Formats: sequence, C-alpha cells, structure tokens
Amino acid sequence: MSLPTEGFSFRVEAVDGDARCGELETPRAKIETPAFMPVGTQAAVKGLTPDEVASTGARIILANTYHLWLRPGAELLASQGGVVGFMSWPHALLTDSGGYQVFSLAKHRTIDDDGITFRSHLDGTLHRLTPEEAMRVQTLLASDIAMVLDECPRGGARRDEVQLAISRTTRWAERCLATEPAPGQARFGIVQGGAELDLRLSHLHTIAALDFDGIALGGFSVGEPTAQMYELLSQIVPSMPADRPRYLMGVGTPADLLRALASGIDLFDCVLPTRNARNGQALTWGGRVNLRQARHARDESTLDAHCDCSVCGTYSRAYLRHLFKADEMLGPRLVSLHNLHFYGSLMRKAREMIRLGLLRPWVETTLQRMQERDEVGGLDA
Amino acid sequence: MSLPTEGFSFRVEAVDGDARCGELETPRAKIETPAFMPVGTQAAVKGLTPDEVASTGARIILANTYHLWLRPGAELLASQGGVVGFMSWPHALLTDSGGYQVFSLAKHRTIDDDGITFRSHLDGTLHRLTPEEAMRVQTLLASDIAMVLDECPRGGARRDEVQLAISRTTRWAERCLATEPAPGQARFGIVQGGAELDLRLSHLHTIAALDFDGIALGGFSVGEPTAQMYELLSQIVPSMPADRPRYLMGVGTPADLLRALASGIDLFDCVLPTRNARNGQALTWGGRVNLRQARHARDESTLDAHCDCSVCGTYSRAYLRHLFKADEMLGPRLVSLHNLHFYGSLMRKAREMIRLGLLRPWVETTLQRMQERDEVGGLDA
Repeated sequence: MSLPTEGFSFRVEAVDGDARCGELETPRAKIETPAFMPVGTQAAVKGLTPDEVASTGARIILANTYHLWLRPGAELLASQGGVVGFMSWPHALLTDSGGYQVFSLAKHRTIDDDGITFRSHLDGTLHRLTPEEAMRVQTLLASDIAMVLDECPRGGARRDEVQLAISRTTRWAERCLATEPAPGQARFGIVQGGAELDLRLSHLHTIAALDFDGIALGGFSVGEPTAQMYELLSQIVPSMPADRPRYLMGVGTPADLLRALASGIDLFDCVLPTRNARNGQALTWGGRVNLRQARHARDESTLDAHCDCSVCGTYSRAYLRHLFKADEMLGPRLVSLHNLHFYGSLMRKAREMIRLGLLRPWVETTLQRMQERDEVGGLDA
Repeated sequence: MSLPTEGFSFRVEAVDGDARCGELETPRAKIETPAFMPVGTQAAVKGLTPDEVASTGARIILANTYHLWLRPGAELLASQGGVVGFMSWPHALLTDSGGYQVFSLAKHRTIDDDGITFRSHLDGTLHRLTPEEAMRVQTLLASDIAMVLDECPRGGARRDEVQLAISRTTRWAERCLATEPAPGQARFGIVQGGAELDLRLSHLHTIAALDFDGIALGGFSVGEPTAQMYELLSQIVPSMPADRPRYLMGVGTPADLLRALASGIDLFDCVLPTRNARNGQALTWGGRVNLRQARHARDESTLDAHCDCSVCGTYSRAYLRHLFKADEMLGPRLVSLHNLHFYGSLMRKAREMIRLGLLRPWVETTLQRMQERDEVGGLDA
C-alpha cells in the first residue's frame, strides 16, 4: 500500500506465523524487511565507509538528531545536501527525534509539557527541544524517515510515571504531525508504555489512529529481562497495523532480533554490532567470539566459517586478536564490518525462512547453535 | 644486476642528473624505484587494509622488529606464515633491526660492544638484542629484506660519539653478515656518521665493501636542519654503489623525498603520512591541509583536485573536518589512505620525470606550489 507520504510504500510479501517479510520503499531506497539499520550516530557508521556499510546488505541507516544538531549543526548539514549528501551515503536514512539522547547525554535537562530544556554535553550551551523543533531539525537533516519526539520513561518506572510519559508522547505526536511536512519525508509515531501490557496496547491504539507512515515501539531494552520483552512483543506486535512498517527502536542482540521479527517486527536499529566490535567482540553464527581471549592467539581459523564477508575471507582470529591486543584501529574497523555483515545475513536468512514458512524451527536451531559455543556467557547477558 | 641473495635483483633503468629510476625485484614483488614504503609498525599499516595499501601503489612495506618481537612474538609470527602471512600483505616486506626502537622506546637500556640490554616498554621484561639476535628474529618474521643492527647516535652528538657509533655499527654489520642467511632474505647494511661528511664517506666506503644487497643511510632527520640534510645527501648519495639499491631510513616530508631522490635515493620509509593523517593533516600537491581549521567547515571541495584516490573521489573537506571534530575513526582512516596515495603518486610522478629527463624543473615547480598554499607553515616545520 501507499503510505501517507508521497514516494513511500510498504508491501507485505509473505507471512509466516506472526512474522512477515516485505518491501519498504522510500524516495532513496527499496528496503527488504525485516531489516537492520546500522547506526551512524554522527553521520558516520563508526570506522566504515558507506560502500562497506552497503556491502553488508543495509539500504537504510540511522543517524542521531541530537548529535548532528549540536555538531556540525542542522543548518550546515542542510547546506551540504543533508546527512546523506554530507556523508556520501547512497541509500535511505532514518533520523531519531533527539529526545532519547537528550535524556541519556545532556546535562541539567528539565522536561515540561511543552518540551525539554537541556545543556549540550559538548559545551554546556542551553538548548530547547520541542516537537516542532525536532521536526524542523530533521527536515534540515533531510532524512527519508523522521521520528516524532517522545518521552521514554526510565526502566523500572512506576505506572503513574509511564502514564505521564504516554500522555506527553501522544500530545507531542499530534504536534509533530501538525507541522508542515518536509517533501518526501515520512514520519513514524512512537508507542510507549514501559512493561505494562494494557498501557502499551492502549497507547498503540492511540498512535495507530494517527496519520503516521509507520509505527515504532520505544522504551524497550531499557533494563527489563529479555524474556519479559519477548513476551510483551508477542502480545503487542500482532496488534500493530499490518499495512504499515513496524519498528522496534534500539534493539538488540541477534537473539532479540530473531525473537522480535518472529513476532512481526520489520525494522531494527542498534549500536550493539559496532560497539561490541570496538571492544573485540565478534558476533557469529556460533555465538560471540571474544578476541581478547588467549585461546585465539594462534588460531588460524576465521571468525565464522559460515560467513562470506571480506574479513572472514582474509584474516585469521590470531591476527584479529593481535590487532586488539596491540590497540590497532584496524581491529575495530574489521570486526565492525564483520558484525554488520552478520546482522545483514541474519536478516537475509530470516526473510528467506519466512518465505519458506520455516521461520520458527530455523530460529530455534539458530539460537541453540549460537548458545552452544558462545564465549561470553548467556546470549542475554 | 643480481644482488648477493638469490631471488633479488636491481636494475637502474633511467638516470637524470644524480637521480635514477629502476626496478628492485624480491621473491615477493617487483618494486619500481624510487619507492616509498608505508610503515606497518605492528603488522598493520594503521587503519588500512592490505588492499588499500596496495592501491596507493606500494609494493613493499616496513614492519618494526622491536614491536613484533615483543608482541605477538617472533615464534608466533613464524608459525603464522611470517608477518606477510599473518597480516595478509600480498607483496614485499622490509623489517628494521629493532635497534632504533630500543633506543627511542625501551626503558633502562644499556649498550655495550656486544649488544643492547633493555626492558620492554610494554611490561618491563628484560631483553637482550645483539646483531645475531636481530638477524634471528628477522628470519622468523620472514621479511624480504632484513636490516643490520646499528647504533644511531643522537642528533647533535659529538664527533667522538659519532665515531664510537660508527665503529660499533661496522663490527655489528660484519657479525650480522656472518650469521646463516635465511633463504630468500636479503640484507642491507647501514651507514652512520651523523652530520660529519668525512665520517659518512669513510663509513660508506667500509659498508659498501661488505656483501650487502643494498645500502641504507641511517641517522638522518634526527633534528638537524633540513638544508644540512639535503646538502649532505647531495655529497654522499652519488658515492653510494650505483648497482645496489640506496635506502634513506625514516625520511620524510614530501620535500625531503623529492630532494633526496634527486640526489639518487631509491627507497624511503616514514610514519609521517599516516601519523599526520591521524592528527587531521592531509598532504596534497597544494601543500598541507589542516582539517581542524575552521575554514574547511563548509568547504565542499575535495582534499586535492589533482588526486585520483577514492577519498578525493567521494568526500568533501567539510565532511572530513567533521569526522575529526567529532573524533570519528573514519577520519584518520580516510586521510591515511589519501596521504599514502599522495606519497605513491609523488613517487610515480618522480619516476616519470626521471625517465623524461625533467626531474629538476619538476621538483622546483612542485615544491613551490606546495609552499604557496601550505596551511601549516614552512614545509620544513
């Protein structure tokens, strides 16, 4: 179907249980779903070129409005062809609203019903983020998909705190939609509700009634047990509008992605594959490989015998381990490329299994194999 | 001519004044000279893959024996196909003797006529480097070209200190040559002598009489004025054996390379292009570009309009500046690639000009253009 914004469409092509695969089209890309969006916080996926990111299968990445607004600045980015022109990314871009980073990074933030006042973590300057400003900045960043400003309650928040965040998020969503839309920029609403199923479902009902191009779930993976997240997702996601893309924000591990897409999620983003790579942790079909462990010192095998990325085609675990022990930046770079390639392969394989109607057994087998040889501990750790 | 070691040959193909271009062949590569060797200190050219390094025109790189001996260890490297197998570098490798880093990095070093005792800068463990050990370690690293252990007197050393270093370097050179050669590994001797022309010429006479595959000049660029270095090189290099490759160790800036190759140097190595890249300094045909300067904030032009590297084909100065301001590792990576590409182009162009008999006017024009727009100060700074 065509989504509310011109140039955007979403088509479900196959269904397997609650899972589905399809195609999201934006003015800049055709994105096969379920899809993982690598994170390019500051207009760069850390350590990698756009060519390399695209080689992992990614056709859409995420950039952080908070960071880019503060540095190099939204007006500068607008003058440089937006974020995609600036960084030479040839496919689609999603920007968040900036709200999440304001809560997690900014100093002295105060929230009221109209917006958030905060000091930059870079230089202490005072800024004001409102729903209207979040949309204006994202217009200047020229993303394909803009996210509404929401309030994400802290993990373990009381029910009344969650209810307050929901009310604000709803009013802010309406104000975001009331701004003049940028031509060719879709807008996604965000559902909050913490770990309270009834609040989640009721807020979903509210947000789904608004004229958004897609619906996101915010406020997951904020400290709750993963089993609880999986359970909630299995009860919420099937109720999300079937004809619009469903995006689970900021999640997660390979296991999280498989569980969530089995419940019907279409889009993911997470810093985990690139952040863990910088710490020497490779993600593979055989679980996590901790390159700092001594067992790899003379290991001539590659990270993953089932991976066809250029890193696995070239370098031994022994060499990759040496790069981390010797603080060589090539290590984080190569493992970031491998990890994103693995996430891309995971999505590609999941789409294939959904089309074959084999998702559930494949997910179980895959998770079991990952757990058997995992080097760090339980997959949920 | 065939050099003393089997599988090695060197042929001068064109001469222009004191400058020459030719081809050095090793078992692993054919190297057009004059050539610049990128530095892969710890079995990695910082931030770059072997493919990228080769794309700059490099067919031989340098690795540091001191670093690799201490970590991951020479025996481990020998078990992994040597340095080139370990790092997947498909061309030739030169290793230094380890002596220079022992003097500049190790703790509590004491030198005697037999060798050097020092503590590792990594963990304080005690080690002993002798001429025989330097050659044994380089055998395990399996480089195409091994350097003899020498003593490099400090910059500004007194004449008697320089004379002592020369005596040791000569005796150590003879001991290095007396070790059993590794099959297919060439050995280069090193000429010392500080800034004393007569000592340099006399030591060159001594070293050239030994059965080395090539002759290197050590102890330059240790703090002396560049004009003095250029003057000494113009008086020493033409006296070096014409039928063996001439290597100027650890030098230098683009201007240094052009002046030295005009005097007849064939091989160079230096950390400058990659180290300066990590500090945000790009080297171009128009001089140095300091990406941290505010003037580049909105500059949509590339680093160098005359450069055909992938960085100049893709990214603006504004974006590269942002990467450095935002501490994104992609910045050092991209500018390292550009800088090595520039050094490769400088060598390629110099070879072309030598063949055309136009080296001298081309060097003068090139240096003048670099100085006119240089953003950091004098080229010698």
